Amino acid sequence: MKRALFEEDHEQFRELATEFNTREVSGKYAQWEKDHQIPREVWQSAGENGLLGLAVPEEFGGMGIDDYRFRVVMDEEFVRAGHLAVALAFHLHDDLVLPYLLAYGSAELKAKWLPRMVDGSTITSCAFTEPGAGSDLRAVRTKAVPDGEDWLLSGQKTFIGNGAFGDAALVLARTDGQSSRASEDSFSLFMVERSEGYTNGNPFDKMGLRASDTAELFFDEVRVSDADRIGEIGQGLRYVKEQLPQARLAIAVAAAAICTASFEQALEHAKNRSTFGQALTQYQNTRFELANLKTESHVTQAFVDQAVLAFNDGELDAHEAAEVKLWASESAKKLSDKALQIHGGYGYIMEYPIAQSFTAARLLTIFGGTSEIMRETIGRAL
Amino acid sequence: MKRALFEEDHEQFRELATEFNTREVSGKYAQWEKDHQIPREVWQSAGENGLLGLAVPEEFGGMGIDDYRFRVVMDEEFVRAGHLAVALAFHLHDDLVLPYLLAYGSAELKAKWLPRMVDGSTITSCAFTEPGAGSDLRAVRTKAVPDGEDWLLSGQKTFIGNGAFGDAALVLARTDGQSSRASEDSFSLFMVERSEGYTNGNPFDKMGLRASDTAELFFDEVRVSDADRIGEIGQGLRYVKEQLPQARLAIAVAAAAICTASFEQALEHAKNRSTFGQALTQYQNTRFELANLKTESHVTQAFVDQAVLAFNDGELDAHEAAEVKLWASESAKKLSDKALQIHGGYGYIMEYPIAQSFTAARLLTIFGGTSEIMRETIGRAL
Amino acid sequence: MKRALFEEDHEQFRELATEFNTREVSGKYAQWEKDHQIPREVWQSAGENGLLGLAVPEEFGGMGIDDYRFRVVMDEEFVRAGHLAVALAFHLHDDLVLPYLLAYGSAELKAKWLPRMVDGSTITSCAFTEPGAGSDLRAVRTKAVPDGEDWLLSGQKTFIGNGAFGDAALVLARTDGQSSRASEDSFSLFMVERSEGYTNGNPFDKMGLRASDTAELFFDEVRVSDADRIGEIGQGLRYVKEQLPQARLAIAVAAAAICTASFEQALEHAKNRSTFGQALTQYQNTRFELANLKTESHVTQAFVDQAVLAFNDGELDAHEAAEVKLWASESAKKLSDKALQIHGGYGYIMEYPIAQSFTAARLLTIFGGTSEIMRETIGRAL
Amino acid sequence: MKRALFEEDHEQFRELATEFNTREVSGKYAQWEKDHQIPREVWQSAGENGLLGLAVPEEFGGMGIDDYRFRVVMDEEFVRAGHLAVALAFHLHDDLVLPYLLAYGSAELKAKWLPRMVDGSTITSCAFTEPGAGSDLRAVRTKAVPDGEDWLLSGQKTFIGNGAFGDAALVLARTDGQSSRASEDSFSLFMVERSEGYTNGNPFDKMGLRASDTAELFFDEVRVSDADRIGEIGQGLRYVKEQLPQARLAIAVAAAAICTASFEQALEHAKNRSTFGQALTQYQNTRFELANLKTESHVTQAFVDQAVLAFNDGELDAHEAAEVKLWASESAKKLSDKALQIHGGYGYIMEYPIAQSFTAARLLTIFGGTSEIMRETIGRAL
Repeated sequence: MKRALFEEDHEQFRELATEFNTREVSGKYAQWEKDHQIPREVWQSAGENGLLGLAVPEEFGGMGIDDYRFRVVMDEEFVRAGHLAVALAFHLHDDLVLPYLLAYGSAELKAKWLPRMVDGSTITSCAFTEPGAGSDLRAVRTKAVPDGEDWLLSGQKTFIGNGAFGDAALVLARTDGQSSRASEDSFSLFMVERSEGYTNGNPFDKMGLRASDTAELFFDEVRVSDADRIGEIGQGLRYVKEQLPQARLAIAVAAAAICTASFEQALEHAKNRSTFGQALTQYQNTRFELANLKTESHVTQAFVDQAVLAFNDGELDAHEAAEVKLWASESAKKLSDKALQIHGGYGYIMEYPIAQSFTAARLLTIFGGTSEIMRETIGRAL
Repeated sequence: MKRALFEEDHEQFRELATEFNTREVSGKYAQWEKDHQIPREVWQSAGENGLLGLAVPEEFGGMGIDDYRFRVVMDEEFVRAGHLAVALAFHLHDDLVLPYLLAYGSAELKAKWLPRMVDGSTITSCAFTEPGAGSDLRAVRTKAVPDGEDWLLSGQKTFIGNGAFGDAALVLARTDGQSSRASEDSFSLFMVERSEGYTNGNPFDKMGLRASDTAELFFDEVRVSDADRIGEIGQGLRYVKEQLPQARLAIAVAAAAICTASFEQALEHAKNRSTFGQALTQYQNTRFELANLKTESHVTQAFVDQAVLAFNDGELDAHEAAEVKLWASESAKKLSDKALQIHGGYGYIMEYPIAQSFTAARLLTIFGGTSEIMRETIGRAL
Repeated sequence: MKRALFEEDHEQFRELATEFNTREVSGKYAQWEKDHQIPREVWQSAGENGLLGLAVPEEFGGMGIDDYRFRVVMDEEFVRAGHLAVALAFHLHDDLVLPYLLAYGSAELKAKWLPRMVDGSTITSCAFTEPGAGSDLRAVRTKAVPDGEDWLLSGQKTFIGNGAFGDAALVLARTDGQSSRASEDSFSLFMVERSEGYTNGNPFDKMGLRASDTAELFFDEVRVSDADRIGEIGQGLRYVKEQLPQARLAIAVAAAAICTASFEQALEHAKNRSTFGQALTQYQNTRFELANLKTESHVTQAFVDQAVLAFNDGELDAHEAAEVKLWASESAKKLSDKALQIHGGYGYIMEYPIAQSFTAARLLTIFGGTSEIMRETIGRAL
Repeated sequence: MKRALFEEDHEQFRELATEFNTREVSGKYAQWEKDHQIPREVWQSAGENGLLGLAVPEEFGGMGIDDYRFRVVMDEEFVRAGHLAVALAFHLHDDLVLPYLLAYGSAELKAKWLPRMVDGSTITSCAFTEPGAGSDLRAVRTKAVPDGEDWLLSGQKTFIGNGAFGDAALVLARTDGQSSRASEDSFSLFMVERSEGYTNGNPFDKMGLRASDTAELFFDEVRVSDADRIGEIGQGLRYVKEQLPQARLAIAVAAAAICTASFEQALEHAKNRSTFGQALTQYQNTRFELANLKTESHVTQAFVDQAVLAFNDGELDAHEAAEVKLWASESAKKLSDKALQIHGGYGYIMEYPIAQSFTAARLLTIFGGTSEIMRETIGRAL
């Protein structure tokens, strides 16, 4: 039952990702957690190493990789190393912002934004969520009002990753000029650069993924050029729905990586740690727990790998992606918890990768649509 | 994410299995449960329809099907119809007895037994377990003692499916003439026909799978021809180990079928059943439970299908098969329980397929090696 | 942390219950399961031994025991012995029918029914549920129409325990003469004796509790004397609500008994059963599972005992009883499942008490209001 | 089913604890988390308010409260406010250090230490655990060697709460002068004041309870007066065993408080938070989850309250306390997780009490003996 997902190219890319982790992140990550910030030069180094904007066509500075397995490789390596906030930060940039530019952006817009996203000089965030609108995007109240050739953007966003130190945000805003309950056609998308009126709150003190700067964004009549509008006016919600498969799959991929890394780290710890004169692996209960971890990590990986291939073939719909996201995120929560328990007190110290995995996993059943939203989505489709 | 397991041949075979269920089993099964017996003519009809001995070469009357997916199809159809004891009875015959004859039997032995197993005129059981030897086969005490050209077989077996009404048993017996703790080489395998000294207890009153006759077997100096010895003397335990992948996979396949059928039956019931003036599907909790059932049945199916293909390619080892058996049987127990709950009181009535699935699933984490044995197997291999 | 529930009287009564089990039930129960019937003479013997109608005042032949702990003792002994269908049959009689007669019955009605219920000559069932009305009693369509001094009762009930062989049923029927959606005042309660027009279906083939005869009841213009009406016209639903605490508590008590017996039986089995040359208790995993069983059975018992004392003091309301019923029934399902697993194949044979407990427990999250109804009840009260 | 644990005195004490939380902790706690330190003046204020050393007799400056319910009240209030690290810090001082002084200390030792612990001028830690000795205290290698009238203490401890900023440590050290595998009589206990050779590592960056300073301690020939030896030489391990009931109960009490607070906070959030135009409580799934939280928090509270009363009566043994600790800590982990999920993204921000509860709960199945140790303890006693 060898995992059949990867080919040689992917394994070469894996070495690149591993080297990057070792060289640029290890030994520095703990400080970034205190700062709630991944330094800007890390983004630039990632860009130089070809780790950002993988799907961007060569004409815009990218490598035009139309194969999601390379993103899978990256997630696996960042998770294994315990650098989950970097995985998240790059995910926001590559999985949540970039696809909109690629799918709906004008040539002008692509030419302006894509090269900067590929080389890491511009850090982006995805600003959909608002205090009163989590999964219910029709409740978004941030509005964009035409003003000459431009738009004036006003409103408040929250839980925005890369929000405090990012340079630009992909913003969902209401453009129908109404204030009554919004319709499917009430919203549009904009790339908004940090400028006058664009401010942010302090990074939240999060349970995990602390090196990621998650913050509130405030827009007070921020001027946005119409050239930075993405796609057609009023199509914002439709675009968001179209991108759900990738958004959900991306989380499932990270979650599966957490499952596998959790098992591997628990096994490693159990082999090396002794108590009452015996290695932990000599205890039947520990072996049973490891057997459960191994089995469920294989199960989850099989399901997610199947979805990755379907996505590559353009055949993963939003409901299926909801199943994959639901399963993998719940599984990551469960397995990282069990693997942490095997670590004993060490699992509670953030420098151990399992502690990073556990705290990150706790976000994954919430972020990108809660498990409840996933179940509602799957349940309504029955 | 379409399931990619089956091709057209399999779907044609599915129709055959469905027709057989409808024609030969439906409406009669409840009586068989009272009798703890599947009538002999049903076996013969199954034989005529090509449902028995699928893997038997054409020269011995079979179809020489070297593709486990046909067995998968059969299990799915018997489970969907709620005829789980028939699935079990055929499984014992085809997955637990037959592979030994095919792999290790002499030409003479094959010629004697295979045609009778294919046409359903001989019903077989697999007699390994003893009161003092469940998973620990080295504790088997049934012994075969040479007597001229023959062997005299004496001992007691228990939990033997097809034991009360079967015609012959595949028996694991000690052949080293010792009584101290056995070694790996102490055992041999025999096909033993019902004859003088071969008796059985009454069928057990089992929780489920009631139409299957599970009983004790007693051998009191039963004369067995040396031609009915399977493979080499002293290789019995080794053969058993070699056949573990199929034995485990077969249970996983049935378990996955239970998962899928449980979801489908719960969905059907929830759509048709109303309470407080609403269909059950209009309740959020029911939708969420159905979403969980759908997702986990897909997850389990993906894992088992992967294993079926590996088995077809000769690449499923005993440890991997243990993972698949462990996961699928535990999943079947869980999902059939949740699906039963959605049925309310109806789920407690044996005529409902979900009640058959639930009670059958309860055996699957025990039968063929308990979940604890699976975890030990997986855990020791770490 | 000794359990503080019982006093000397209760322990004496326990001996009585134990003797009754040994003398009247053991060795016969398997046959009753085939017959789906507890013989009438067993009821009479129970009556003679003071096991029926405990709460009935002395003037009506009872012992006037206003202390629910005696019922707790009985449940514990019947469950421990694996005679769960007898516990259920007596529960229906004592907990679901009797309280209505005691609380709302006229002196005349009490004089007619109570002595016969105490001496076991009349076996009663509680006939509320209908094919289209499970927990939603307002959907009950059985109707009682005045006819001179009597009523004519017509309708259909289902899932009625003691339904096939019982002598009389407590029937909830609509008495408002309307056919539109019923109101709170649309129903009344009647004691209905088997007579012309009162028929029943065959006992259901249930998963467990097989010795209990559960069946459909059909009423075709059955004549019921107005003297057999219980309490006031139109108060039926209100009475049902008032009796919810006892109905729910009774199930929780049986469920807690299942938890305790499951642990004890698993421990006993694990001590006596060896595999691979070791008693099961020598395996760490088995010890851990037993530790979990012991702990959760104590937890559940503590909660239920607290509720029993509150009920004795008249201070257990329906919402609290819902918590107790929900918890204890789910716990019984879980613990009997885990205890069964420790029994291996033996747990699947109905002659083992654990198999009786497991199959009975599966009904308890459905019977008397599903876990979903309990959660709705608790959730709405928040 | 009113909770019967508390009397008027306890409720008055609760007001004191609440006021202390509001006045001394709220609004400052987030900074303490960054500092990994609770300021010294907070300890002194707690001392002035009678929150430290409750059990210390009046002659040594305390109130001589021989009723554990006052500690229960404190835990409940600190947990409700989300100030879990303060609860932990005081717990270490009062439940893990103090009982040894009270039970085994000489009058001289009591006179020296108790008043300083009551007024908060001396902060103490309990230093048993070592890198190679978690639950297996016989593996402790820190040693105390007689030197004139004193002892010289050398060794290393880890995971020591109050370790970085505490003034003194209760140290378990080997005093038999041997280096082979220790016996039951190899260890003694000492109160060790910060002095030459007594150093500590930096506070660990923990997942939760961040305001508590948990660190390594290093002893390099630290001079300890024989007057600071606690009880008899060689009785250290025996004393530790005798104090297990309180150590375990204390964690269970905090855990039960987490269960209750989790439910209350989830309910509060669900009532106030709307999505898709409805309060969360209007969703059936949310109501069901809240019903589960309410029920299991009641269940856990009932079990722990029973144990508190048994402890007050001197009747809680170490095995029973293991059951209570196991159950309550696992329950706290589960319920805080479910309550966090109801909070959505807010639950991931540390300023929300539920995030504090969840991260603290994750330690409770490890700290004070893992759940595995508890199961082993319970299982061995069967």
